[in-house]
Amino acid sequence: MSLSPAELLATIDHAILKPDCTYSDVMYACRMGRAYLLASVCVPPIWASMAVQELSGAETPVSSVVGFPYGFVTSETKAAEAVALVAQGCAELDMVMNISALRSGRLDMVISDIAAVAQSMGACAEGPRLKVILETCYLDEQQISQAVDAAVQAGAQYVKTSTGFGPHGATVEHVALLRRLAPPHIGVKAAGGIRSLAELQGFIAAGADRIGTSATEAIIEQLQAGSGHGHL
Amino acid sequence: MSLSPAELLATIDHAILKPDCTYSDVMYACRMGRAYLLASVCVPPIWASMAVQELSGAETPVSSVVGFPYGFVTSETKAAEAVALVAQGCAELDMVMNISALRSGRLDMVISDIAAVAQSMGACAEGPRLKVILETCYLDEQQISQAVDAAVQAGAQYVKTSTGFGPHGATVEHVALLRRLAPPHIGVKAAGGIRSLAELQGFIAAGADRIGTSATEAIIEQLQAGSGHGHL
Repeated sequence: MSLSPAELLATIDHAILKPDCTYSDVMYACRMGRAYLLASVCVPPIWASMAVQELSGAETPVSSVVGFPYGFVTSETKAAEAVALVAQGCAELDMVMNISALRSGRLDMVISDIAAVAQSMGACAEGPRLKVILETCYLDEQQISQAVDAAVQAGAQYVKTSTGFGPHGATVEHVALLRRLAPPHIGVKAAGGIRSLAELQGFIAAGADRIGTSATEAIIEQLQAGSGHGHL
Repeated sequence: MSLSPAELLATIDHAILKPDCTYSDVMYACRMGRAYLLASVCVPPIWASMAVQELSGAETPVSSVVGFPYGFVTSETKAAEAVALVAQGCAELDMVMNISALRSGRLDMVISDIAAVAQSMGACAEGPRLKVILETCYLDEQQISQAVDAAVQAGAQYVKTSTGFGPHGATVEHVALLRRLAPPHIGVKAAGGIRSLAELQGFIAAGADRIGTSATEAIIEQLQAGSGHGHL
């Protein structure tokens, strides 16, 4: 049951989120998203409206981030960011969970934080979609389970492993764990350190529906060179 | 012209800003701030009001961060964060400059971003103070000069080298450069990777008025052990 190259590309949220990225980098990323029909192009909030303009008429939407990458801004801040980004035309938002609150045993704060964002953006399967970044590198298995429950209960559509800026990114074990923990209607996004087609395929095999990566160009080259594992 | 131990401690903004820090870590940091009369204890926005409560009556105030650590949230978001943090009792805010805009040649965006925060919080030498984190590791000398001018023009009280989460933190060269570039009434804060009393003293000698560090306990131990360079 392997995915075609087009299906593989359609799993990719192409991330252009380094703090030193430029406007030109973001526009280049948008053109790549349009050309290769990626799932989305994920851009910093300051460039979101220009990215939406650049991708006007394209099948690939713009996504952006909320409370990124540490998740320790207040729920009011996150909700306001989300409202503005959806108003600017972002189809999906990847918010960072309140990691510090979860690690402090304040699950109530974690849930209300996600709910504030989900409600403010009108998150739903058909409209703007919310992904919750758990930053699993900082969590034990019980905390990951609590975080998945919180995301589902609060109205998110996806749980996501990592920002890509923590001590480590997605692991196959964590992706498989998220897939086991989350109900079937909730998507799983693997992100952080995914640099090759083989890794992308490995995460999809482990249960990921969506892949976050900034190495999309390398992956496209590998797809074109037919270096996947029998998928071309 | 060496500083006494108390004067050295009074230069320290003790930072507790790792994404996996807990409420207990923040409270511990506050107690240290109170006991050692540090310049401030710099906490994540989600714990700011509780830190203010913990430090009620202390000489050491609470500081917090805005747009941290990437600086690529919108000016509206940063201004709203700043208003809320000052209302909660934060005496100082360390905002991350719009690094991406500066590197894109959009100095106008950099200035208006800092001005939005400075104005929203009523930043001034006597009231709430604003420090602008340039994240110098991403900038060349011309960009650093532009950034200092932007911060001064927009109403900040300090320029600061680093978040502590970039590829590298403060360097003696960058601190000396900031001191040369900034007018005398603007403070210079060195932060990022400062782990020892000797490093702290080196940055002060290079022109820093304020030091951001999370290694305050180690520095206090070194001060108590008299391992400074003749300052005890």
